[in-house]
Amino acid sequence: MEQTDEVASLSKKAQKKAERLSKKMAAASLSTAATAGGDLAEDALAANYGDVPLLELQSKAITGRKWKKVSELDASLNGQSVLLRGRCHTTRGKGKIAFLILREAGHTVQCVFQVEDNVVSKGLIKYINSLSKESIIDVEGTVDIPSAPINGTTQQVELKGRKVYCVSKARPVLPFNLEDASRSEKDFQKAEQEDLQYVRVNQDTRLNNRVLDLRTSANQAVFRIQSYVSMFFRQFLVSRGFVEIHTPKLIAGASEGGAAVFSLDYYGQPACLAQSPQLHKQMAICADLGRVFEIGPVFRAENSFTHRHLCEFTGLDLEMEIKEHYFEVLDILDELFVFVFDGLHQHCSKELEAINEQYPFEPLKYLKKTLRLTFEEGLQLLKDDGIELDPFGDLDTASERRLGTLVKEKYNTDFYILHRYPLAVRPFYTMPCFDNPQYSNSFDVFIRGEEIISGAQRVHDPELLTSRAEACGINVKSLSTYIDSFRWGAVPHGGVGVGLERVVMLYCALNNIRKASMFPRDPTRLAP
Amino acid sequence: MEQTDEVASLSKKAQKKAERLSKKMAAASLSTAATAGGDLAEDALAANYGDVPLLELQSKAITGRKWKKVSELDASLNGQSVLLRGRCHTTRGKGKIAFLILREAGHTVQCVFQVEDNVVSKGLIKYINSLSKESIIDVEGTVDIPSAPINGTTQQVELKGRKVYCVSKARPVLPFNLEDASRSEKDFQKAEQEDLQYVRVNQDTRLNNRVLDLRTSANQAVFRIQSYVSMFFRQFLVSRGFVEIHTPKLIAGASEGGAAVFSLDYYGQPACLAQSPQLHKQMAICADLGRVFEIGPVFRAENSFTHRHLCEFTGLDLEMEIKEHYFEVLDILDELFVFVFDGLHQHCSKELEAINEQYPFEPLKYLKKTLRLTFEEGLQLLKDDGIELDPFGDLDTASERRLGTLVKEKYNTDFYILHRYPLAVRPFYTMPCFDNPQYSNSFDVFIRGEEIISGAQRVHDPELLTSRAEACGINVKSLSTYIDSFRWGAVPHGGVGVGLERVVMLYCALNNIRKASMFPRDPTRLAP
Repeated sequence: MEQTDEVASLSKKAQKKAERLSKKMAAASLSTAATAGGDLAEDALAANYGDVPLLELQSKAITGRKWKKVSELDASLNGQSVLLRGRCHTTRGKGKIAFLILREAGHTVQCVFQVEDNVVSKGLIKYINSLSKESIIDVEGTVDIPSAPINGTTQQVELKGRKVYCVSKARPVLPFNLEDASRSEKDFQKAEQEDLQYVRVNQDTRLNNRVLDLRTSANQAVFRIQSYVSMFFRQFLVSRGFVEIHTPKLIAGASEGGAAVFSLDYYGQPACLAQSPQLHKQMAICADLGRVFEIGPVFRAENSFTHRHLCEFTGLDLEMEIKEHYFEVLDILDELFVFVFDGLHQHCSKELEAINEQYPFEPLKYLKKTLRLTFEEGLQLLKDDGIELDPFGDLDTASERRLGTLVKEKYNTDFYILHRYPLAVRPFYTMPCFDNPQYSNSFDVFIRGEEIISGAQRVHDPELLTSRAEACGINVKSLSTYIDSFRWGAVPHGGVGVGLERVVMLYCALNNIRKASMFPRDPTRLAP
Repeated sequence: MEQTDEVASLSKKAQKKAERLSKKMAAASLSTAATAGGDLAEDALAANYGDVPLLELQSKAITGRKWKKVSELDASLNGQSVLLRGRCHTTRGKGKIAFLILREAGHTVQCVFQVEDNVVSKGLIKYINSLSKESIIDVEGTVDIPSAPINGTTQQVELKGRKVYCVSKARPVLPFNLEDASRSEKDFQKAEQEDLQYVRVNQDTRLNNRVLDLRTSANQAVFRIQSYVSMFFRQFLVSRGFVEIHTPKLIAGASEGGAAVFSLDYYGQPACLAQSPQLHKQMAICADLGRVFEIGPVFRAENSFTHRHLCEFTGLDLEMEIKEHYFEVLDILDELFVFVFDGLHQHCSKELEAINEQYPFEPLKYLKKTLRLTFEEGLQLLKDDGIELDPFGDLDTASERRLGTLVKEKYNTDFYILHRYPLAVRPFYTMPCFDNPQYSNSFDVFIRGEEIISGAQRVHDPELLTSRAEACGINVKSLSTYIDSFRWGAVPHGGVGVGLERVVMLYCALNNIRKASMFPRDPTRLAP
């Protein structure tokens, strides 16, 4: 602002006003030039708060300002000035003081704004009280160690706030409050005792407004854990010489057979979505890649409305040459999952804590060398418990769960392998046992009595493969490119398919697979 | 075999025969009990070769035998006995000697079998000559350093073979020979000079028999490099706090709009396959995940038959909060790709060599700090070169290539960023520039004059987003769950989409994207 003679000739009052204005402009240029929160004439500190115009957020400038994360705030920063961006979680103002809980990625910190001459104006307090929940705000203030511990925030320090700007306003009325969506069963029980009325947010409301629901601390943790599971999965396999592949999801014919496929038109040809990378990952083995893995979507058009089925989920698949025995696959699998579980234990304590806060669960019990039982041994355990099953049938969900409990009691593990399944209950490409063709070189792996992995040695002989497909009533012609792959020389091999969402669900003992899928798909849900 | 009195009473000749038989059985039990390659009575060493019956490969036993890889063989193993499994690449026998080239994952070693009393029989030589190319075989022998260097194998040591068993027979006639599929243009030129007739394997024949085609050394290398690219991509992003997500490929409505979508029926609802994770990765940002990435299939129903379009490819996507400027995305991208290129250079020299052998190419030139040009600057370079273009239009393929050449000449880099594209040529969710709404906060990234990455700051304001979608003629109603995500508070953010196959294709200067896709999909190709 230019100083002119005119300014000098202003009355004292007017001059003061001009000084305030000048001061404000300087402050504004330092702090993304927010729209005044109050009237200039009435608040000399109006530049310390207000809505940031969109134009300022369109990559207007690079100021070099340093930002902190809410999760990074601790006592070591005591007395330091910090700049934060997060959500307005809650606000509470009374008179000359306002408390604002700022939330970023599930972490919360209390910001206290107190009216003080030349620092915090009444206008700022009023502005904070006008902020809608979930709005994105920038807060500048000084880290402080409060005299008494703070309830209801994840960070134990607080912020003495000086400035607050709104970057993006949330609608004043939300489908539900984050506080309501974050409560545990224990909170509800306690509320009942105290005659409080808490709103329960049901699953469909959550999923219909998933973007909001995902903001709870527990959900933030669930999807970070999911990310870690894939990371450990890959890290381990890469260290063992596995090559990551990407196989097509659009395939001709009917995938692995059966009715549960999504069909579509592909430039006039009938096509479907792959039910798994099974056929192509085996073809990658026939193509000399030795050991391969893939992480990608798999599609199942099943009409299942259970707690553990989705129409689209993330498959962690691996396939490998075996020299002699399918135990070579189990050895890899065993080490792989101990690596994943150890990794989660070591790196995700905060995330596991956040989930436990809302959905308490017992930590997973697993052995350093994973228990392997044959299917026959499994049936015997059930038989000893009074449950007699068809020796060549499959286990139903109830028997699987019961067996999980019996195994836990006897071997103290939530994680184990059941192998040598009856051939009749396995896919056509499963290798029969050498000593009894009623059994197969196959296995399932369980967490807390629920299946997370299915695998087997595969049939690498094209003649046996053809006759097995025919025996299973599968249209061999639609599988010709797959079967032909074995006619040019094929190594013995085996592999597994893992359901990522199931691993996360069962590791954390969540009660529904939809909780472990960011945007779940089931027969009635195709959005958001 | 039990020794009985009967054995003792046999004639001397018969006794010798029995001894041979007994010896053979012992040898067989050591070495996966192969079917005799010749007549027992005629070859005392018949147990040293033959076809392994399928039953022996159905996980019959764990013998504890140690296997080496062909790629592991070197002079340090001189004189040691090793066991290998690989393919019969070629055989050449004359009289009492047979040369067998054993191939495993593109690596080859020469195995020499020479008739010698009590070691190698004539029957074994005959058996080797009967092996069909590409059959899977086990070879036992001693590592040896040959007196003269060996032509045509990747390993410089050879094997003095003693035993050979066939695990899986390839059909005697193959769609093409691996040797033919592995030749370079230079080989063909040389052959012409020498009046040799080499068979050329054309691209469709290769792709129709992709499992065979993938076995060439160059292709083995291409897909290992592809795996490395994803690995470095992830490693870098995880180190910078990015969370890996998996967004649905099955979506309601018409994805991001336009005609290029695959449609299907989803339990009676119209659905389509996601053209990219664009909408859901932005929703993950609205869900407070801060920085996310995804590696997964994307689907484009475009009727394109170019060298660089596929109907299904692997997208490397990232999306991140930005505090002030889309340069924050460029900074990440810059470091990310320098990390990927450095990583390939450091870890993949053998693979790059193998590709160069068949498809020679100039190593990629890139700068430690990636060059950034504005779209206007790019147009100026073209204008100076005599090419005048619409300042608010897009670049066509020819101008992109020409610009790549001009940039290489002027700045000595094959890799650079072009930013501030005209708004009109970018998707509706692209943020306009603060100072000129005819331009946008967007960018493309090029390798050797071809686009591999597209990205931008996104519109986080729901009103502007709606009006931009409308201005682009998009059905706003079908995008309601996406647009609503921004109504509950949204941080400024930006991101990019990378085509994995394009990165591999252009890094290695391959002439067709199908070479960088394991099982490519184009409008006429849905198999294998």
